[in-house]
Amino acid sequence: MATATGVLDTINTIQDVKKLTPQELNLLAEEIRETLIKRVDITGGHFGSNLGIIETTIALHYVFNSPLDKIVFDVSHQCYAHKILTGRKAGFTDPNSYSKYTGYTAPEESDHDLFKVGHTSTSVSLAVGLAKGRDLLGKKGNVIALIGDGSLTGGEALEGLNNAAVLGSNLIIVLNDNDMSIAENQGGICNMLTQMRQQRGNVKNNFFEALGLEYFYLDEGNDLQKLIALFKQVKDTNHPVVLHIHTQKGKGFTPAEINKESFHWIMPGTISHLNDAPKPMDEDYNSITRNYLLQKVSEGMPIVAINAATPGVFGFNKAFRNEMGTHYVDVGIAEEHAVAMTSGLAKSGAKPVFCVSSSFVQRTYDQLSQDLALNSNPATILVYWGGISGADATHLTTFDIPLISNIPNMVYLAPTCKEEYIRMLDWSVQQNKYPVAIRVPTNFVSCRIKDETDYSILNKFKMVEKGNKVALIGVGTFFWKAREVKSFLKTKLDLNATLINPRFITGLDVDMLNSLKANHQVVVTLEDGELDGGFGEKIARFYGSSDVKVLNYGSFKEFTDKVSRDALYTKYRLTPQLIAQDIKSVI
Amino acid sequence: MATATGVLDTINTIQDVKKLTPQELNLLAEEIRETLIKRVDITGGHFGSNLGIIETTIALHYVFNSPLDKIVFDVSHQCYAHKILTGRKAGFTDPNSYSKYTGYTAPEESDHDLFKVGHTSTSVSLAVGLAKGRDLLGKKGNVIALIGDGSLTGGEALEGLNNAAVLGSNLIIVLNDNDMSIAENQGGICNMLTQMRQQRGNVKNNFFEALGLEYFYLDEGNDLQKLIALFKQVKDTNHPVVLHIHTQKGKGFTPAEINKESFHWIMPGTISHLNDAPKPMDEDYNSITRNYLLQKVSEGMPIVAINAATPGVFGFNKAFRNEMGTHYVDVGIAEEHAVAMTSGLAKSGAKPVFCVSSSFVQRTYDQLSQDLALNSNPATILVYWGGISGADATHLTTFDIPLISNIPNMVYLAPTCKEEYIRMLDWSVQQNKYPVAIRVPTNFVSCRIKDETDYSILNKFKMVEKGNKVALIGVGTFFWKAREVKSFLKTKLDLNATLINPRFITGLDVDMLNSLKANHQVVVTLEDGELDGGFGEKIARFYGSSDVKVLNYGSFKEFTDKVSRDALYTKYRLTPQLIAQDIKSVI
Repeated sequence: MATATGVLDTINTIQDVKKLTPQELNLLAEEIRETLIKRVDITGGHFGSNLGIIETTIALHYVFNSPLDKIVFDVSHQCYAHKILTGRKAGFTDPNSYSKYTGYTAPEESDHDLFKVGHTSTSVSLAVGLAKGRDLLGKKGNVIALIGDGSLTGGEALEGLNNAAVLGSNLIIVLNDNDMSIAENQGGICNMLTQMRQQRGNVKNNFFEALGLEYFYLDEGNDLQKLIALFKQVKDTNHPVVLHIHTQKGKGFTPAEINKESFHWIMPGTISHLNDAPKPMDEDYNSITRNYLLQKVSEGMPIVAINAATPGVFGFNKAFRNEMGTHYVDVGIAEEHAVAMTSGLAKSGAKPVFCVSSSFVQRTYDQLSQDLALNSNPATILVYWGGISGADATHLTTFDIPLISNIPNMVYLAPTCKEEYIRMLDWSVQQNKYPVAIRVPTNFVSCRIKDETDYSILNKFKMVEKGNKVALIGVGTFFWKAREVKSFLKTKLDLNATLINPRFITGLDVDMLNSLKANHQVVVTLEDGELDGGFGEKIARFYGSSDVKVLNYGSFKEFTDKVSRDALYTKYRLTPQLIAQDIKSVI
Repeated sequence: MATATGVLDTINTIQDVKKLTPQELNLLAEEIRETLIKRVDITGGHFGSNLGIIETTIALHYVFNSPLDKIVFDVSHQCYAHKILTGRKAGFTDPNSYSKYTGYTAPEESDHDLFKVGHTSTSVSLAVGLAKGRDLLGKKGNVIALIGDGSLTGGEALEGLNNAAVLGSNLIIVLNDNDMSIAENQGGICNMLTQMRQQRGNVKNNFFEALGLEYFYLDEGNDLQKLIALFKQVKDTNHPVVLHIHTQKGKGFTPAEINKESFHWIMPGTISHLNDAPKPMDEDYNSITRNYLLQKVSEGMPIVAINAATPGVFGFNKAFRNEMGTHYVDVGIAEEHAVAMTSGLAKSGAKPVFCVSSSFVQRTYDQLSQDLALNSNPATILVYWGGISGADATHLTTFDIPLISNIPNMVYLAPTCKEEYIRMLDWSVQQNKYPVAIRVPTNFVSCRIKDETDYSILNKFKMVEKGNKVALIGVGTFFWKAREVKSFLKTKLDLNATLINPRFITGLDVDMLNSLKANHQVVVTLEDGELDGGFGEKIARFYGSSDVKVLNYGSFKEFTDKVSRDALYTKYRLTPQLIAQDIKSVI
């Protein structure tokens, strides 16, 4: 028998898991749990979701034969135990290898990973494709979709279930129900799952059976032997089944069991500094937004703050949610519904403010275009974290400008500082004509002067400093980069460049751009996002028929995976030195 | 009592409907039916869907008080009777006014129309927004979402139901179940609804009740008095309810009752030429695609032809579907699922070909990006009808290039003729590296020479004719427009322009573009779609730092509503004369 710290040492491939005794399997679960707690405290990462799914992961690999049997992880932020068991243990046990593997499934790392995923609600559809392909090619093997209860509310997952029901062959959908999305779940499906848990799966109206899917319930979702028994029961089934498994988010780490939301994803050092006194909150865009919304509600304005299952990203803490009351709506993972509802609210005369991350706003293009922009309803969309970052390939934030700014009727604003942000937010909420998106800056800066711009005059750029020869147009956060370039040009080349803050991403200030022709040889654009389809290309098109040269700076069209921002800035020539060098070569 | 043709004459506002006797209401339904059959045969339009919903529409307006009570039409292609009853009768009875109103709800036409809609599955979410806004503003009135059974499978609708369930106030969801999408429905929800109809709503597992929604069933969905009674029963309800109403698609016109798919939407003259002998099918992109897919299947290739509820658009007739057998999948209205499943199929080694209209591909941006492109799975997406058209604002087809071409890893191809199309399709299906989209041309043209290009060499443009001073780059169908411009320049200005067929939308042929710098002053791009975020802007960016001037032609960033293509071509300066004029002004 292995010692308490010894079972994990013996595991190098999943074949090793299959040899373990029941007791060893339990020890393995505990050792993985300890390993994850230690590692995630140092590296940061998804915490509660991974702690809850350890037994399920071990049981899956004990019963099924990956990669012949195929496990598709929804979101895949719960794949740490899976990575440990499939040859990537060092990434979790060896501090020198902590950064070796990404936090999501990655086919380039292992054959046991089917897809690179990070957005939710995709597993059932991906698995249906795998299963259909298996059948067509006459292959064998189980296809398993592992989806959380929170992800189940996304439209793609529901479309997937509707189609899974008629697949007519092997498909095992494991519903990992830990009663939480990132924050509390809500909606009809959440209430339904609560009832199913309370009644141990025996409910009058079974949602999954209504769709035509066979249904099993397991209340002890962290009990390895019961999981193994259930998986053995359905292995090689000839039709789609749903295994509804009740697990405990954060299991094994008491603070995470109690405060599931705070421990869904943690920053490095969270656990080791658990008892530190909380730091006073500095002012930031979250606090500004919260205060603004609360203020307007208290003035009697029919504000509705909306988000799709990620209130923490916007600082919508429990105190805020409580104070907002009926003025706060979390729609669950349902960005499409969020935008359509936003349009309906605006039409009714209410003042919706939908907060969404740049990475997730792309889940709702058609609703932005058809439900909102085509109807020109006056709603506000706050897009957070737009810009070049060292994020995972699954959570890049460089595509929101091409996505939003090419939709007719949309007004997309790029504030450079808190004063502009406040003024734009206030204008957007008060006006009744336009669907407005605001790209919340990623850096918190003060312009030190109150902004009194009338944003109802669309597409009016701000001439910040008049110079000549070279004009620098810096969008949003990159206005400050443009300012750095200006200083550099002055110091190194004795050039007195013009500096412009466009503020509007969705349209051009034709008068100002035309006026530049008189005494400028080159116009330089800087935007914190993808060049293709972005703002700079519109400037290039504008000057295409003139003698003015245009240089565009931003990110390339590519999925980068945890490449540091500094490395990307260098690659994209986004430094004052490199930009100045390019300017020099064209004037 | 009114005569058989007289009740409709007395209806000018919905107040007039409320005064009618039961017998007059029945007569009104019949008169509207006759009116629609006559009108749609002349103008073309949605037919079966409108015939089935006449009684429901009359009953809604009889019981409820629009616009205080708010009726949200899903898709809104079934709004003809609604338009007749809400002051727009002339658009259906007076041939001179037939084109006065659009085929969809339009707030600019009437206060009784809440939203401009044409894409499906949006009504529940829009209605939830209206209801939430009503509550917040302390207003009164019923909010009604009228959704078809086909639209229910779309993710947005299911997200909407999940959130409707917890609204906690008045919301009436009328599920108009005519047992059809455009083609036959399929999937778990379809089977479930069939069972519900067969059992008159009394089923073991009620899907809607599982979600927490109160449920009513009416089998006689074309019986005015029963509809009126049901609507009266739920009027002013204080919680969300679902009214499942069984209607007959095409009701009152026997051929449309029998062949529901063919009569969902009809061309002008369909009914008056019902008994004409069928015309022999000419070759077109549909027949080419069908034949190619069948051929590959017969060769043993694991092809899967996928579409989302619109097989007719791609010529996927019943004979083709039968012959394809398990190689054919209609996922229902579920474009997100379709793309994710496509990625799963490709991963499994199968060869998926997903066919989708330009207008609907925008319903699945995140899946194209995350589920497919990020994973670089080798799938084929055929995008139909991309280009400038006189369509409704809800069905424009000018946005697919900005949407698809700015996603990393995607290869978007633009064939100019059938030979290129066949070669590209064949390459895409055979290769194992890239997610490929092909923009199926809207004009059927032969290049008269077999295309033997190796498309695995990405982003290689084709130099069709070498000239000087001016280079014309025509994308896809607009290659032929570029050719016209070339002829015009030769004849009128004695310019021997270079003519290029780029074939790739997603990347630039840097070598060729650089080589043009030597003896060209201006490069002109022509693309059949939106300029903003499109292909031409990438060319403008490329030449931004050089002396080469660039002129971009395509459509503006705007929603046009039934503006003729010729009018748009003039507005966008897309004629040889206007383009030549612009060229002359810069050389």
